Amino acid sequence: MSFYEKLKWTEEGLIPAIVQEQSTGRVLMMAWMNRASLEKTIETGRTHFWSRSRKKFWMKGEQSGHTQAVKDIAFDCDGDTLLIQVEQAGAACHEGYKSCFFRSVEGGEFKITEAQLKKPGEIYVL
Amino acid sequence: MSFYEKLKWTEEGLIPAIVQEQSTGRVLMMAWMNRASLEKTIETGRTHFWSRSRKKFWMKGEQSGHTQAVKDIAFDCDGDTLLIQVEQAGAACHEGYKSCFFRSVEGGEFKITEAQLKKPGEIYVL
Repeated sequence: MSFYEKLKWTEEGLIPAIVQEQSTGRVLMMAWMNRASLEKTIETGRTHFWSRSRKKFWMKGEQSGHTQAVKDIAFDCDGDTLLIQVEQAGAACHEGYKSCFFRSVEGGEFKITEAQLKKPGEIYVL
Repeated sequence: MSFYEKLKWTEEGLIPAIVQEQSTGRVLMMAWMNRASLEKTIETGRTHFWSRSRKKFWMKGEQSGHTQAVKDIAFDCDGDTLLIQVEQAGAACHEGYKSCFFRSVEGGEFKITEAQLKKPGEIYVL
């Protein structure tokens, strides 16, 4: 059975994809895929997503060079979420952190929990 | 600044929460929270969610005993996804696996990648 038959998409034809760095176990980001971006991810071995805000198909790292090499694609019991294992080139976060989850709740406020690898202005060459 | 001010909720007042086992790095599940379930999670140290299908507030493990003790709550750069570190009692998945992501894509089909800890019928005492 094709695994596609197990997947459930939102009304907009999307599925959330959690991206985890395989070598460290670090969760890097969460983004959305449509079927075309999932197919392209499998075909190329590089993560591709669908931007809901920009309504645009995009490859992770297409501007920054911070691509993600796909190592495994898993899906959950309900078939409505993907978990993608990758090796990450550079910073996953557009704010220059390895992971987008660089802030943790502390006493009702929050703290930054990791080093900024680059300043955002140093990342994108537009 | 309260971390709540950094969070973005969907039109339905929800935010996706990735749950990761802190000791192993394993991603266990993804579920949705509303503000009340996030507050209850912080207050009690046990994960609470909002079920979109059942339209119901629920505590993870309320029926199965498979609760999640919260160790850390992080949020991403866009403030629209949570990453919650926990220690998991028993199986996170209602199908009896430690993680809901127990299937991986392989050659267009899929394979089961972990042992089933319990049969689903053995989990819930309703």
